[in-house]
Amino acid sequence: MRIVVAKNILKANDQLAAENRARFEAAGVYALNIVGSPGCGKTTLLEAVFRRLAGRLRPAVIEGDIAGSIDAERMEALGIPVVQINTDGACHLDAVMIASAVGQLDLQAIDLLAIENVGNLVCTAGFDLGEHLRLVVLGVTEGDDKAVKYPAIFQGSDALVLTKTDLMPHTNFRVERIAADLARLAPKAPLFRVAALGGEGIGPLVEWLAAKLPVKG
Amino acid sequence: MRIVVAKNILKANDQLAAENRARFEAAGVYALNIVGSPGCGKTTLLEAVFRRLAGRLRPAVIEGDIAGSIDAERMEALGIPVVQINTDGACHLDAVMIASAVGQLDLQAIDLLAIENVGNLVCTAGFDLGEHLRLVVLGVTEGDDKAVKYPAIFQGSDALVLTKTDLMPHTNFRVERIAADLARLAPKAPLFRVAALGGEGIGPLVEWLAAKLPVKG
Repeated sequence: MRIVVAKNILKANDQLAAENRARFEAAGVYALNIVGSPGCGKTTLLEAVFRRLAGRLRPAVIEGDIAGSIDAERMEALGIPVVQINTDGACHLDAVMIASAVGQLDLQAIDLLAIENVGNLVCTAGFDLGEHLRLVVLGVTEGDDKAVKYPAIFQGSDALVLTKTDLMPHTNFRVERIAADLARLAPKAPLFRVAALGGEGIGPLVEWLAAKLPVKG
Repeated sequence: MRIVVAKNILKANDQLAAENRARFEAAGVYALNIVGSPGCGKTTLLEAVFRRLAGRLRPAVIEGDIAGSIDAERMEALGIPVVQINTDGACHLDAVMIASAVGQLDLQAIDLLAIENVGNLVCTAGFDLGEHLRLVVLGVTEGDDKAVKYPAIFQGSDALVLTKTDLMPHTNFRVERIAADLARLAPKAPLFRVAALGGEGIGPLVEWLAAKLPVKG
Protein backbone atom coordinates (compact mmCIF):
# COMPACT_ATOMS: atom_id res chain seq x y z
CA MET A 1 0.00 0.00 0.00
CA ARG A 2 2.79 2.41 0.90
CA ILE A 3 4.63 1.45 -2.26
CA VAL A 4 1.62 2.34 -4.40
CA VAL A 5 1.41 5.78 -2.79
CA ALA A 6 5.12 6.38 -3.33
CA LYS A 7 4.78 5.42 -6.99
CA ASN A 8 1.85 7.80 -7.46
CA ILE A 9 3.82 10.63 -5.88
CA LEU A 10 6.75 9.99 -8.19
CA LYS A 11 4.46 9.83 -11.22
CA ALA A 12 2.81 13.14 -10.30
CA ASN A 13 6.26 14.63 -9.73
CA ASP A 14 7.50 13.51 -13.15
CA GLN A 15 4.46 15.00 -14.88
CA LEU A 16 4.93 18.34 -13.15
CA ALA A 17 8.68 18.23 -13.86
CA ALA A 18 7.88 17.87 -17.58
CA GLU A 19 5.65 20.95 -17.31
CA ASN A 20 8.44 22.88 -15.59
CA ARG A 21 10.84 21.89 -18.38
CA ALA A 22 8.38 22.99 -21.08
CA ARG A 23 7.96 26.32 -19.29
CA PHE A 24 11.75 26.77 -19.13
CA GLU A 25 12.12 25.95 -22.82
CA ALA A 26 9.36 28.33 -23.88
CA ALA A 27 11.28 31.11 -22.14
CA GLY A 28 14.72 30.03 -23.40
CA VAL A 29 15.90 29.08 -19.89
CA TYR A 30 18.42 26.28 -19.39
CA ALA A 31 18.04 24.63 -15.98
CA LEU A 32 20.57 22.77 -13.81
CA ASN A 33 19.88 20.58 -10.77
CA ILE A 34 22.93 20.60 -8.48
CA VAL A 35 23.04 17.68 -6.04
CA GLY A 36 25.58 16.45 -3.51
CA SER A 37 26.23 15.82 0.20
CA PRO A 38 25.92 18.59 2.77
CA GLY A 39 29.10 20.62 2.62
CA CYS A 40 30.39 19.17 -0.66
CA GLY A 41 30.79 22.70 -2.02
CA LYS A 42 27.71 23.26 -4.17
CA THR A 43 27.30 26.94 -3.31
CA THR A 44 31.00 27.74 -3.62
CA LEU A 45 30.99 26.00 -7.02
CA LEU A 46 28.03 28.10 -8.17
CA GLU A 47 29.75 31.28 -7.00
CA ALA A 48 32.83 30.38 -9.05
CA VAL A 49 30.75 29.47 -12.12
CA PHE A 50 28.77 32.71 -11.95
CA ARG A 51 31.92 34.81 -11.52
CA ARG A 52 33.36 33.21 -14.64
CA LEU A 53 30.09 33.67 -16.59
CA ALA A 54 29.64 37.31 -15.57
CA GLY A 55 28.42 39.41 -18.50
CA ARG A 56 28.05 36.38 -20.80
CA LEU A 57 24.81 34.89 -19.52
CA ARG A 58 22.02 36.04 -17.25
CA PRO A 59 21.86 33.59 -14.33
CA ALA A 60 19.34 32.99 -11.55
CA VAL A 61 19.29 30.58 -8.63
CA ILE A 62 16.75 28.60 -6.65
CA GLU A 63 18.23 27.59 -3.29
CA GLY A 64 16.79 24.55 -1.52
CA ASP A 65 17.43 24.28 2.19
CA ILE A 66 15.70 22.66 5.12
CA ALA A 67 16.10 25.86 7.11
CA GLY A 68 17.69 29.28 6.81
CA SER A 69 18.83 31.36 3.86
CA ILE A 70 22.62 31.36 4.18
CA ASP A 71 23.22 30.26 0.59
CA ALA A 72 20.62 32.62 -0.87
CA GLU A 73 22.34 35.51 0.88
CA ARG A 74 25.63 34.47 -0.74
CA MET A 75 23.95 34.58 -4.17
CA GLU A 76 22.37 37.97 -3.46
CA ALA A 77 25.81 39.26 -2.55
CA LEU A 78 26.83 38.43 -6.15
CA GLY A 79 23.82 40.36 -7.46
CA ILE A 80 22.11 37.22 -8.78
CA PRO A 81 18.30 36.86 -8.66
CA VAL A 82 17.53 34.15 -6.12
CA VAL A 83 14.50 32.40 -4.63
CA GLN A 84 14.93 30.51 -1.36
CA ILE A 85 12.87 27.37 -0.81
CA ASN A 86 12.68 26.21 2.81
CA THR A 87 11.60 22.58 2.77
CA ASP A 88 10.70 22.60 6.47
CA GLY A 89 12.35 19.28 7.12
CA ALA A 90 11.91 17.62 3.74
CA CYS A 91 15.07 15.97 2.49
CA HIS A 92 14.95 16.93 -1.20
CA LEU A 93 13.35 19.38 -3.60
CA ASP A 94 10.50 18.26 -5.84
CA ALA A 95 8.84 19.57 -8.98
CA VAL A 96 5.97 21.18 -7.03
CA MET A 97 8.39 23.31 -5.03
CA ILE A 98 10.16 24.38 -8.22
CA ALA A 99 6.89 25.26 -9.98
CA SER A 100 6.04 27.46 -7.04
CA ALA A 101 9.47 29.12 -6.85
CA VAL A 102 9.62 29.76 -10.60
CA GLY A 103 6.54 31.96 -10.29
CA GLN A 104 8.71 34.42 -8.42
CA LEU A 105 11.31 34.72 -11.19
CA ASP A 106 11.19 36.66 -14.46
CA LEU A 107 12.05 33.77 -16.80
CA GLN A 108 12.35 36.08 -19.80
CA ALA A 109 15.32 37.74 -18.11
CA ILE A 110 17.15 34.45 -17.38
CA ASP A 111 19.43 32.28 -19.52
CA LEU A 112 20.75 29.84 -16.93
CA LEU A 113 18.77 28.73 -13.87
CA ALA A 114 20.75 26.82 -11.28
CA ILE A 115 18.72 24.88 -8.72
CA GLU A 116 20.78 23.98 -5.66
CA ASN A 117 19.15 20.96 -4.06
CA VAL A 118 19.13 20.03 -0.35
CA GLY A 119 22.43 18.48 0.69
CA ASN A 120 21.59 14.79 0.35
CA LEU A 121 23.26 12.09 -1.72
CA VAL A 122 20.27 9.74 -1.41
CA CYS A 123 16.80 11.25 -1.53
CA THR A 124 17.47 13.82 -4.26
CA ALA A 125 18.12 10.97 -6.72
CA GLY A 126 14.48 10.10 -7.40
CA PHE A 127 13.01 13.52 -8.14
CA ASP A 128 13.13 15.16 -11.56
CA LEU A 129 12.70 18.92 -11.07
CA GLY A 130 12.35 19.76 -14.76
CA GLU A 131 16.06 20.42 -15.22
CA HIS A 132 18.02 19.88 -18.42
CA LEU A 133 21.16 18.65 -16.67
CA ARG A 134 21.86 17.19 -13.26
CA LEU A 135 25.33 17.78 -11.85
CA VAL A 136 26.51 15.69 -8.92
CA VAL A 137 29.14 17.39 -6.80
CA LEU A 138 31.61 15.40 -4.68
CA GLY A 139 34.34 16.84 -2.48
CA VAL A 140 37.56 14.83 -2.58
CA THR A 141 37.50 15.04 1.24
CA GLU A 142 34.42 12.76 1.17
CA GLY A 143 36.40 9.78 -0.10
CA ASP A 144 36.58 7.92 -3.40
CA ASP A 145 34.08 5.18 -2.41
CA LYS A 146 30.96 7.32 -2.69
CA ALA A 147 29.75 6.11 -6.09
CA VAL A 148 29.81 2.51 -4.84
CA LYS A 149 27.89 3.45 -1.70
CA TYR A 150 25.38 5.86 -3.30
CA PRO A 151 25.04 4.55 -6.86
CA ALA A 152 21.61 5.98 -7.76
CA ILE A 153 22.61 9.62 -7.62
CA PHE A 154 25.64 9.02 -9.85
CA GLN A 155 23.66 6.84 -12.23
CA GLY A 156 21.16 9.59 -13.02
CA SER A 157 23.60 12.50 -13.29
CA ASP A 158 24.96 14.12 -16.44
CA ALA A 159 28.32 15.17 -15.03
CA LEU A 160 30.43 14.69 -11.90
CA VAL A 161 32.20 17.72 -10.48
CA LEU A 162 35.00 16.83 -8.07
CA THR A 163 35.53 19.78 -5.72
CA LYS A 164 38.20 20.76 -3.17
CA THR A 165 40.90 19.25 -5.38
CA ASP A 166 43.40 21.57 -3.67
CA LEU A 167 42.99 19.30 -0.61
CA MET A 168 43.74 16.14 -2.61
CA PRO A 169 47.34 15.85 -1.31
CA HIS A 170 45.95 15.66 2.26
CA THR A 171 43.53 12.81 1.46
CA ASN A 172 43.72 9.23 0.21
CA PHE A 173 41.35 10.04 -2.66
CA ARG A 174 42.12 8.27 -5.96
CA VAL A 175 40.57 9.97 -8.99
CA GLU A 176 41.01 6.82 -11.07
CA ARG A 177 38.75 4.92 -8.67
CA ILE A 178 35.81 7.36 -8.88
CA ALA A 179 36.40 7.73 -12.64
CA ALA A 180 36.07 3.95 -13.06
CA ASP A 181 32.85 3.88 -11.02
CA LEU A 182 31.46 6.81 -13.00
CA ALA A 183 32.31 5.10 -16.30
CA ARG A 184 30.29 2.10 -15.12
CA LEU A 185 27.31 4.00 -13.64
CA ALA A 186 27.07 6.97 -16.05
CA PRO A 187 29.23 6.26 -19.10
CA LYS A 188 28.33 9.53 -20.86
CA ALA A 189 29.00 11.81 -17.91
CA PRO A 190 32.23 13.82 -18.00
CA LEU A 191 34.26 14.35 -14.84
CA PHE A 192 35.45 17.85 -13.95
CA ARG A 193 38.02 18.72 -11.27
CA VAL A 194 37.76 22.07 -9.56
CA ALA A 195 39.06 23.94 -6.53
CA ALA A 196 36.26 26.48 -6.53
CA LEU A 197 37.52 28.74 -3.73
CA GLY A 198 40.56 29.56 -5.83
CA GLY A 199 38.78 29.10 -9.16
CA GLU A 200 41.09 26.37 -10.52
CA GLY A 201 39.45 24.12 -13.09
CA ILE A 202 36.29 26.23 -13.44
CA GLY A 203 37.03 27.11 -17.07
CA PRO A 204 36.42 23.68 -18.66
CA LEU A 205 33.20 23.19 -16.67
CA VAL A 206 31.85 26.62 -17.64
CA GLU A 207 32.69 26.10 -21.33
CA TRP A 208 31.01 22.69 -21.30
CA LEU A 209 27.90 24.24 -19.75
CA ALA A 210 27.88 27.26 -22.04
CA ALA A 211 28.05 24.98 -25.10
CA LYS A 212 24.89 23.20 -23.91
CA LEU A 213 22.80 26.37 -23.83
CA PRO A 214 20.49 27.14 -26.74
CA VAL A 215 21.69 29.94 -28.98
CA LYS A 216 19.27 32.83 -28.66
CA GLY A 217 18.13 34.64 -31.80
CA MET B 1 -3.47 11.11 4.60
CA ARG B 2 0.25 10.75 3.87
CA ILE B 3 1.04 12.51 7.14
CA VAL B 4 -1.06 10.06 9.10
CA VAL B 5 0.77 7.14 7.55
CA ALA B 6 4.13 8.73 8.31
CA LYS B 7 3.13 9.32 11.93
CA ASN B 8 2.05 5.71 12.33
CA ILE B 9 5.35 4.52 10.91
CA LEU B 10 7.26 6.73 13.34
CA LYS B 11 5.15 5.53 16.26
CA ALA B 12 5.74 1.89 15.35
CA ASN B 13 9.44 2.65 14.96
CA ASP B 14 9.67 4.24 18.40
CA GLN B 15 7.96 1.27 20.01
CA LEU B 16 10.33 -1.18 18.38
CA ALA B 17 13.30 1.04 19.24
CA ALA B 18 12.29 0.84 22.91
CA GLU B 19 12.22 -2.95 22.60
CA ASN B 20 15.69 -2.92 21.03
CA ARG B 21 16.97 -0.77 23.89
CA ALA B 22 15.47 -3.12 26.51
CA ARG B 23 17.11 -6.06 24.74
CA PHE B 24 20.48 -4.28 24.75
CA GLU B 25 20.16 -3.42 28.44
CA ALA B 26 19.20 -6.95 29.42
CA ALA B 27 22.44 -8.12 27.80
CA GLY B 28 24.58 -5.26 29.18
CA VAL B 29 25.17 -3.81 25.73
CA TYR B 30 25.66 -0.04 25.27
CA ALA B 31 24.56 1.13 21.83
CA LEU B 32 25.65 4.11 19.74
CA ASN B 33 23.97 5.55 16.64
CA ILE B 34 26.58 7.29 14.48
CA VAL B 35 25.10 9.78 12.01
CA GLY B 36 26.60 12.28 9.55
CA SER B 37 26.92 13.20 5.88
CA PRO B 38 28.36 10.79 3.32
CA GLY B 39 32.12 10.92 3.64
CA CYS B 40 32.22 12.82 6.95
CA GLY B 41 34.50 10.14 8.38
CA LYS B 42 32.20 7.88 10.41
CA THR B 43 33.99 4.65 9.58
CA THR B 44 37.46 6.09 10.05
CA LEU B 45 36.33 7.48 13.42
CA LEU B 46 35.06 4.06 14.48
CA GLU B 47 38.33 2.44 13.42
CA ALA B 48 40.26 4.91 15.59
CA VAL B 49 37.90 4.44 18.57
CA PHE B 50 38.13 0.67 18.36
CA ARG B 51 41.93 0.73 18.08
CA ARG B 52 42.06 2.85 21.23
CA LEU B 53 39.58 0.58 23.07
CA ALA B 54 41.34 -2.66 22.09
CA GLY B 55 41.42 -5.11 25.00
CA ARG B 56 39.28 -2.88 27.25
CA LEU B 57 35.82 -3.47 25.80
CA ARG B 58 34.28 -5.98 23.44
CA PRO B 59 32.87 -4.03 20.47
CA ALA B 60 30.58 -4.94 17.60
CA VAL B 61 29.28 -2.97 14.65
CA ILE B 62 26.16 -2.77 12.52
CA GLU B 63 26.92 -1.07 9.21
CA GLY B 64 24.09 0.64 7.35
CA ASP B 65 24.61 1.26 3.65
CA ILE B 66 22.39 1.63 0.64
CA ALA B 67 24.63 -0.74 -1.30
CA GLY B 68 27.86 -2.66 -0.88
CA SER B 69 29.86 -3.75 2.14
CA ILE B 70 32.98 -1.58 1.98
CA ASP B 71 32.70 -0.36 5.58
CA ALA B 72 31.84 -3.79 6.97
CA GLU B 73 34.98 -5.17 5.33
CA ARG B 74 37.02 -2.47 7.08
CA MET B 75 35.57 -3.55 10.42
CA GLU B 76 36.23 -7.22 9.70
CA ALA B 77 39.83 -6.30 8.95
CA LEU B 78 40.04 -5.09 12.56
CA GLY B 79 38.63 -8.41 13.80
CA ILE B 80 35.38 -6.83 15.00
CA PRO B 81 32.06 -8.69 14.73
CA VAL B 82 29.97 -6.87 12.10
CA VAL B 83 26.57 -7.15 10.48
CA GLN B 84 25.97 -5.32 7.20
CA ILE B 85 22.51 -3.91 6.52
CA ASN B 86 21.85 -3.03 2.88
CA THR B 87 18.88 -0.68 2.82
CA ASP B 88 18.32 -1.18 -0.92
CA GLY B 89 17.81 2.52 -1.55
CA ALA B 90 16.34 3.59 1.79
CA CYS B 91 17.95 6.74 3.14
CA HIS B 92 18.25 5.83 6.82
CA LEU B 93 18.24 2.88 9.21
CA ASP B 94 15.15 2.15 11.31
CA ALA B 95 14.41 0.09 14.40
CA VAL B 96 13.07 -2.84 12.36
CA MET B 97 16.35 -3.19 10.49
CA ILE B 98 18.27 -3.08 13.77
CA ALA B 99 16.01 -5.69 15.41
CA SER B 100 16.70 -7.96 12.47
CA ALA B 101 20.46 -7.36 12.45
CA VAL B 102 20.80 -7.85 16.21
CA GLY B 103 19.54 -11.40 15.81
CA GLN B 104 22.81 -12.17 14.06
CA LEU B 105 25.00 -10.95 16.94
CA ASP B 106 25.88 -12.66 20.21
CA LEU B 107 24.82 -9.82 22.54
CA GLN B 108 26.28 -11.58 25.59
CA ALA B 109 29.73 -11.21 24.04
CA ILE B 110 29.38 -7.45 23.34
CA ASP B 111 29.92 -4.40 25.54
CA LEU B 112 29.71 -1.61 22.96
CA LEU B 113 27.57 -1.80 19.83
CA ALA B 114 28.22 0.94 17.27
CA ILE B 115 25.55 1.38 14.62
CA GLU B 116 26.85 3.32 11.62
CA ASN B 117 23.87 4.89 9.92
CA VAL B 118 23.48 5.68 6.20
CA GLY B 119 25.35 8.87 5.27
CA ASN B 120 22.54 11.40 5.53
CA LEU B 121 22.26 14.54 7.63
CA VAL B 122 18.48 14.76 7.16
CA CYS B 123 16.50 11.54 7.16
CA THR B 124 18.41 9.79 9.93
CA ALA B 125 17.20 12.45 12.40
CA GLY B 126 13.68 11.10 12.90
CA PHE B 127 14.41 7.45 13.63
CA ASP B 128 15.30 6.12 17.08
CA LEU B 129 17.11 2.80 16.62
CA GLY B 130 17.15 1.89 20.31
CA GLU B 131 20.55 3.44 20.93
CA HIS B 132 21.71 4.99 24.21
CA LEU B 133 23.66 7.80 22.56
CA ARG B 134 23.56 9.43 19.16
CA LEU B 135 26.80 10.94 17.90
CA VAL B 136 26.69 13.36 14.99
CA VAL B 137 29.91 13.49 12.99
CA LEU B 138 30.89 16.56 10.95
CA GLY B 139 34.04 16.97 8.89
CA VAL B 140 35.53 20.44 9.09
CA THR B 141 35.76 20.28 5.28
CA GLU B 142 31.92 20.39 5.20
CA GLY B 143 31.78 23.96 6.50
CA ASP B 144 30.74 25.55 9.79
CA ASP B 145 27.16 26.37 8.66
CA LYS B 146 25.81 22.82 8.83
CA ALA B 147 23.99 23.11 12.18
CA VAL B 148 22.03 26.11 10.87
CA LYS B 149 21.14 24.27 7.67
CA TYR B 150 20.38 20.85 9.19
CA PRO B 151 19.21 21.68 12.73
CA ALA B 152 17.17 18.54 13.50
CA ILE B 153 20.09 16.13 13.46
CA PHE B 154 22.13 18.32 15.80
CA GLN B 155 19.16 18.94 18.09
CA GLY B 156 18.64 15.27 18.80
CA SER B 157 22.29 14.28 19.19
CA ASP B 158 24.21 13.68 22.42
CA ALA B 159 27.63 14.76 21.17
CA LEU B 160 29.22 16.38 18.13
CA VAL B 161 32.45 14.94 16.81
CA LEU B 162 34.34 17.27 14.50
CA THR B 163 36.55 15.19 12.22
CA LYS B 164 39.41 15.92 9.79
CA THR B 165 40.67 18.69 12.09
CA ASP B 166 44.12 18.23 10.52
CA LEU B 167 42.62 19.86 7.41
CA MET B 168 41.33 22.88 9.39
CA PRO B 169 44.19 25.19 8.23
CA HIS B 170 43.09 24.60 4.62
CA THR B 171 39.45 25.55 5.27
CA ASN B 172 37.49 28.58 6.48
CA PHE B 173 35.90 26.52 9.27
CA ARG B 174 35.38 28.38 12.56
CA VAL B 175 34.96 26.07 15.56
CA GLU B 176 33.43 28.91 17.60
CA ARG B 177 30.59 29.18 15.09
CA ILE B 178 29.58 25.51 15.21
CA ALA B 179 30.10 25.51 18.99
CA ALA B 180 27.66 28.42 19.35
CA ASP B 181 25.06 26.65 17.19
CA LEU B 182 25.52 23.42 19.14
CA ALA B 183 25.09 25.29 22.46
CA ARG B 184 21.77 26.60 21.16
CA LEU B 185 20.48 23.36 19.60
CA ALA B 186 21.87 20.77 22.02
CA PRO B 187 23.12 22.55 25.16
CA LYS B 188 24.19 19.34 26.94
CA ALA B 189 26.15 17.88 24.02
CA PRO B 190 29.94 18.07 24.27
CA LEU B 191 32.04 18.82 21.20
CA PHE B 192 35.06 16.64 20.41
CA ARG B 193 37.76 17.40 17.85
CA VAL B 194 39.52 14.53 16.17
CA ALA B 195 41.79 13.78 13.25
CA ALA B 196 40.94 10.11 13.16
CA LEU B 197 43.38 8.99 10.45
CA GLY B 198 46.28 10.03 12.69
CA GLY B 199 44.40 9.36 15.93
CA GLU B 200 44.68 12.91 17.35
CA GLY B 201 41.93 13.77 19.81
CA ILE B 202 40.55 10.24 20.05
CA GLY B 203 41.51 9.90 23.75
CA PRO B 204 38.97 12.36 25.25
CA LEU B 205 36.13 10.93 23.11
CA VAL B 206 36.95 7.35 24.08
CA GLU B 207 37.20 8.21 27.80
CA TRP B 208 33.87 10.06 27.67
CA LEU B 209 32.26 7.02 26.00
CA ALA B 210 33.88 4.52 28.35
CA ALA B 211 32.57 6.45 31.38
CA LYS B 212 29.00 6.12 30.02
CA LEU B 213 29.11 2.34 29.91
CA PRO B 214 27.54 0.34 32.71
CA VAL B 215 30.04 -1.33 35.03
CA LYS B 216 29.70 -5.08 34.63
CA GLY B 217 29.65 -7.28 37.74
